[in-house]
Amino acid sequence: MNNIILIGSGNVATHLALSLLSCGYKITQVWSQKIENAKKLSNKINSQAIDNLMHIKKADLYIIAVKDDKIESIINKLKNKINNVVHTSGNTNINVFAKHFKYFGVLYPLQTFNKINQNNLEFPLCIESNHPIFEKKLIKLANNLSNKVELINSQQRKTIHLAAVFSCNFTNHMFSIADNLLTKANIDFKILLPLIQQTYHQLEKNTPSELQTGPAARKDINTINKQLDDITDEKIKNIYRIITNSIMCNDN
Amino acid sequence: MNNIILIGSGNVATHLALSLLSCGYKITQVWSQKIENAKKLSNKINSQAIDNLMHIKKADLYIIAVKDDKIESIINKLKNKINNVVHTSGNTNINVFAKHFKYFGVLYPLQTFNKINQNNLEFPLCIESNHPIFEKKLIKLANNLSNKVELINSQQRKTIHLAAVFSCNFTNHMFSIADNLLTKANIDFKILLPLIQQTYHQLEKNTPSELQTGPAARKDINTINKQLDDITDEKIKNIYRIITNSIMCNDN
Repeated sequence: MNNIILIGSGNVATHLALSLLSCGYKITQVWSQKIENAKKLSNKINSQAIDNLMHIKKADLYIIAVKDDKIESIINKLKNKINNVVHTSGNTNINVFAKHFKYFGVLYPLQTFNKINQNNLEFPLCIESNHPIFEKKLIKLANNLSNKVELINSQQRKTIHLAAVFSCNFTNHMFSIADNLLTKANIDFKILLPLIQQTYHQLEKNTPSELQTGPAARKDINTINKQLDDITDEKIKNIYRIITNSIMCNDN
Repeated sequence: MNNIILIGSGNVATHLALSLLSCGYKITQVWSQKIENAKKLSNKINSQAIDNLMHIKKADLYIIAVKDDKIESIINKLKNKINNVVHTSGNTNINVFAKHFKYFGVLYPLQTFNKINQNNLEFPLCIESNHPIFEKKLIKLANNLSNKVELINSQQRKTIHLAAVFSCNFTNHMFSIADNLLTKANIDFKILLPLIQQTYHQLEKNTPSELQTGPAARKDINTINKQLDDITDEKIKNIYRIITNSIMCNDN
C-alpha cells in the first residue's frame, strides 16, 4: 500500500498526510469539495488536487478523512469504483462501507488535531477491517505511523471517542473557563500550568477517582457556596453546580 | 524564620512540612484535633505532636493548614498569643487575621495535594502579607520552597482558586467519567493518555479557546445526538449536554 489517495483536506487529513509522507508513502491525490483547500494540502505533499471524485485515480489505499456527516455521500460517489477504503472517524460504524466495497476498514487516530499543533506520532491508531488480509496491510501501515496500534471494533471505538470528548474537548473547555476568569482579574493563565501538569502526570500511575481533590471531593459546602456567589455568569455557575454535584455523588 | 509550627496535618500540611524539612527548616510542633493524626506527621519530620493549642510553643512562623471552615476557630484559640501567622487557603481573605495578630499573611500553594502524589516543588507559591517586613520574610522562605513565588492579593487568590477548581478538580472529574465509560467497555483508560498529554502540552503556547476541537466546536449536531443516545446515565448525559452547549455558544 504505497500509493495513497486522501479524501479530505482538514486537520485530520493534513496530519495523516504529513505522517504518511514522512514515512515514505506517496499521496497521489488529495480531494476536497473546494479545490483551493485541496491545493493547500496537495502543495505541501507534492500531490494532485482534485474537487471531483470522478477524476479519482487507482491507488492502493483510499483514506476518507472528512466530517462524519459527509462520509456517506462520499461513499455513494465512490461505491463500486474503488477498493481498499478506510475512514478515520471515531463515531462511524465500519458497516457504512459494507454493501459497496470488498475490502474496507477504519484507521482512527486517537488524538486532537487542530491548525496549530505540530505533527506528533505518539498517539494510538485504532484499526478495524472487514478482512484479515486487508487488516494485516492496515496494521503494517499503522505500525509505520505509530507505536501504539490497537485493534478496536466499532462499538469500542464509539466508546473511546465519547471518552475522548470528555477527556480532551471538555477538559479544554474547563481550561477556557479558567482562562476567562483569570483574564478578567488580570492574571496570566500560565500560573495554572504546574497544577494542570500535575493533574495529568498523576494519571500515569493512578485512577482519576483516586486523584479527585477540591471543595466538592471534601464536601466543603462553605467554599462551594462562596465560589458560586463569586461566579457572575449564569452559564458558568450552572456548569460549576452540575460538576460539583456529580463529584459529590461520587457514583459514576 | 527557622522554627516553624504547623497547625494541621492533612495533605497540604504534610506536603509543606516535607518541603520545609528538605529545605533545612525545623518544624517544632504539629497540631491536629486528633493526636494520632498529629503523630503520623510529626513522626515523619522529627517534631512534637500536640492536640491542644494551649500547649503551643514560641516559633518564628505559624502555618495554619486546615480546612477552610476550621480557620476561624483556630484563630480564636490563638489570638493575641502568637504572631507571624499565615494560612494556606485559596479562598480565605487575609482579613480573617486582622483584629488578632500584628504580622500575618497567606502562603497559598497552587497545587493539588493528595495522599498519593510525591512532593513536587515545581508549583507556584502565592504570598500575601499585611506588613512589608513580614512579607519580605515570607518571600525569602517561599523562594527556598519554590521557583515560582507570586505576590497575590486575596481577591486575586480567590479567582485563582476558582480557576484551579475548573482546571484541576473538574478536569479530573472528566477523566473519571471517561475512565468509567471505558472500564464498562473493557478498554484501558491509559489509551487516552497521549491525547490528554497533547491537550495539556498545547496550553504552553496557545490559549485554550484556540485549541478547542471536537463535535461541539465543529457544531456537529449529528455526532452530538449520537453520543447523547449512547450515554445511559442521566447525570452524565446532562453534563455532556451542558458542556457541549457552553462550547457551542463559545462566548465565555
